[in-house]
Amino acid sequence: MKKTLFIISLLFIQILVFGQQKPKYVFFMIGDGMGLNQINLTEVFLAAQEDRNTVFPLVFSTFPHATFATSYSLSHGVTDSAAGGTALAVGYKTKNGVIGMDSAATKSYKSIAYAAKEAGLKVGITTSVSIDHATPASFYANRANRNMYYEIGQDLIKSNFDFFAGSSFLSPEKNYEKDAVPSLFPQFEKAGYQLAYGLSAYKSLANKGNKTILMNTKDSEKDALKFAIDQETGDLNLAEITDAAIESLTKDNDKGFFLMVEGGKIDWASHANDATTTIREVLDFNEAVKRAYAFYEKHPEETLIIVTADHETGGIAIGNGSSRLNVKLLAEQKVSQGALSKLISDLRTSKDEVSWDEVKQLLSENTGLFTTVTVNKSDEENLFAIYEKSFVKHEEETSKSLYATDDKLATEVITVLNKVGSVSWASGNHSAAYIPVFAIGAGSDVFTHKMENTDIPRKVAEVAGWSLD
Amino acid sequence: MKKTLFIISLLFIQILVFGQQKPKYVFFMIGDGMGLNQINLTEVFLAAQEDRNTVFPLVFSTFPHATFATSYSLSHGVTDSAAGGTALAVGYKTKNGVIGMDSAATKSYKSIAYAAKEAGLKVGITTSVSIDHATPASFYANRANRNMYYEIGQDLIKSNFDFFAGSSFLSPEKNYEKDAVPSLFPQFEKAGYQLAYGLSAYKSLANKGNKTILMNTKDSEKDALKFAIDQETGDLNLAEITDAAIESLTKDNDKGFFLMVEGGKIDWASHANDATTTIREVLDFNEAVKRAYAFYEKHPEETLIIVTADHETGGIAIGNGSSRLNVKLLAEQKVSQGALSKLISDLRTSKDEVSWDEVKQLLSENTGLFTTVTVNKSDEENLFAIYEKSFVKHEEETSKSLYATDDKLATEVITVLNKVGSVSWASGNHSAAYIPVFAIGAGSDVFTHKMENTDIPRKVAEVAGWSLD
Repeated sequence: MKKTLFIISLLFIQILVFGQQKPKYVFFMIGDGMGLNQINLTEVFLAAQEDRNTVFPLVFSTFPHATFATSYSLSHGVTDSAAGGTALAVGYKTKNGVIGMDSAATKSYKSIAYAAKEAGLKVGITTSVSIDHATPASFYANRANRNMYYEIGQDLIKSNFDFFAGSSFLSPEKNYEKDAVPSLFPQFEKAGYQLAYGLSAYKSLANKGNKTILMNTKDSEKDALKFAIDQETGDLNLAEITDAAIESLTKDNDKGFFLMVEGGKIDWASHANDATTTIREVLDFNEAVKRAYAFYEKHPEETLIIVTADHETGGIAIGNGSSRLNVKLLAEQKVSQGALSKLISDLRTSKDEVSWDEVKQLLSENTGLFTTVTVNKSDEENLFAIYEKSFVKHEEETSKSLYATDDKLATEVITVLNKVGSVSWASGNHSAAYIPVFAIGAGSDVFTHKMENTDIPRKVAEVAGWSLD
Repeated sequence: MKKTLFIISLLFIQILVFGQQKPKYVFFMIGDGMGLNQINLTEVFLAAQEDRNTVFPLVFSTFPHATFATSYSLSHGVTDSAAGGTALAVGYKTKNGVIGMDSAATKSYKSIAYAAKEAGLKVGITTSVSIDHATPASFYANRANRNMYYEIGQDLIKSNFDFFAGSSFLSPEKNYEKDAVPSLFPQFEKAGYQLAYGLSAYKSLANKGNKTILMNTKDSEKDALKFAIDQETGDLNLAEITDAAIESLTKDNDKGFFLMVEGGKIDWASHANDATTTIREVLDFNEAVKRAYAFYEKHPEETLIIVTADHETGGIAIGNGSSRLNVKLLAEQKVSQGALSKLISDLRTSKDEVSWDEVKQLLSENTGLFTTVTVNKSDEENLFAIYEKSFVKHEEETSKSLYATDDKLATEVITVLNKVGSVSWASGNHSAAYIPVFAIGAGSDVFTHKMENTDIPRKVAEVAGWSLD
């Protein structure tokens, strides 16, 4: 009896001291530009839709470990997605703009995805933007400049990773020097990748376990999936990509996987200072996390999910003066600023004269302004002045942010809606805010304290037993 | 041998499963208005002073547990310090403005300080503002309205807590109905409190273990200690208060203590959107945490330190467009906005005509503007216009924020400095941002996940074995 108890207690000690089982399935999920306030705003928004003054948590904000990390790069107080993605991927800070290399771009770093691959796991790299964009690229490429899209595409072949997904590739036939070069796509195929254009194409693949690159249908935009707020039935989304990745990486594979999933357009929406579209992107990303969480529930002892961000975008604040929040009315916005912009410019070019009432009706239908959302006199005067300039005089029609050149009336309308909806933005660029770190599952209990962004992949590698250096 | 091993292993299991020793000494430290970005900015500022593009951690940001919590109140998306302090003190959300009671102000809640007192510990309540202000009051008072300063003072007597410290009391001789009433001070003395006006008075107390109220010297401002940035040698500060509290609470006492320490003016500086003064207040609060940490180092097994906030103030963001931060130059500001305001109005009233050059010199000496800090043309024109209005025409001389009515030129100068210094503010009110939660020591390992602000005292009570309900 005593001997049995002794053995049991020793086993117990071992479990407690040496920790849980090493994770065999690692989800590394990145909300690009998703600062703590973007998450908080989304939680407030969900509750506000039911007239509740509380927060409705996201699946990842209920994880048993939640902390935060620095985001500054080696060169700048405010990181870009290249240095931010690199920090998360390789565990080293680098200069803004660099992918997976040191600041001088003389040394290539090994990413955690390569470390997982070396350890015998399958690897998937997925995103809602293009596969060669800075964040996904940081996990498989080593390039001096994030804009070397063609060369980053070539690194995909070098990686030999098992599953890639995203909208497409930004420069498949032109290198960084702008020379015409052999297309990447046949090179991918030659390297053994099956190319699936759209979810149906993926679904009809004979062997989903073979190396795969899932892209959007050929008639879709190349630069990114549509914003969640603008998606219609049949449009490829991040949750479907996550499902496909899980299916593909687990097919005939008992060695486990490392899967990076990026919600890439939270950042884009925040660059445009478009709160509703940002919220919808966070929710879209949350749907992808739900798929990972469903997998975790089936394999709780062997799965680790990390949800983090590369940086915060926009310096968003919830509350801009009043203690009472009007976040609920952000739901009146039905389309992204970009889509609204197109609607406005279509209306402008549809005929010779467009009345202010016609414009107001379009704005009302798509943002609630002038009907459910009260517009004060000074804001209406401002909007009318922009209308006069752009619709009547055809001057200053557009306004530029990092990923979009939008109709000026659209950006001003979204500015008014955000203001009335209790949201404030510091700028159209990234901020230096801490990034969130949420973790659940095997090894998650090392994510308990404020850390450097570079600690995140190092800790994952450590608990998984992979070698990053 | 086996038997010994068996016993050892059982003990080991007990420690691991049933956790560390219960905390005997609990520091509950609140940075009023200290959001995650206020902390982050301070860390960036410290590194920037040495031209380092990194963060220099504060003592509490290195704690082994760091997470965050919601801050919304029962009535508002954005809490005030009454509902925020109450949530942290009693573990229930309430309506903005209410101290330690339910929204209808019909039921009094028991605070964690009372729970600690019941458990036989000594209790200290300290702050850098007035002792009857919302945050400290939440720990010892139960009142329908935070402005019932006299009545809150009466609750101090009821509490019978051991040590209080702060600037003073706001309304010791007038009740909420504005009637003249017997002064609180003799009542405190009658209830057994020794009143110490200033640190020297405290130091000369015969028995520091007796019930004590430490206030600022009688010739000091009643509403708060001076801003850290404006303090001179001999001015009472929060670290000294913390030391005095520890000394007093440990004198002839082997039952332990609960000590609440509030850095109350981080909030005030952020209400004024004054970044440098905010940073200096965070550093001042950090000095107080250092005193707690020194105590923890002597009693690591028995001490728990929690560092948190009641809410974020101002919706501050670090970075307002450029990826390169100019936070370093915030150090050029040598006085708070309030003190600058006084310097400016003193100059204005010093003689009949004050030249723009004289004003510029004063601004330069106190904020670096026009010398080390470059002012662009449009900002200079704006400042000059304000000078003309307020110095020449004597119009619109002041500008009001929650805790101050400052000279308009002072507020504009600080606005310019903040803008050039890469800091942005959403408003002069609180925001709904998550609040930080840092913990170290006995029982700190329950602070690992995102929580409600009300969970914080509940978890402390749980690990300490105190009853909150």
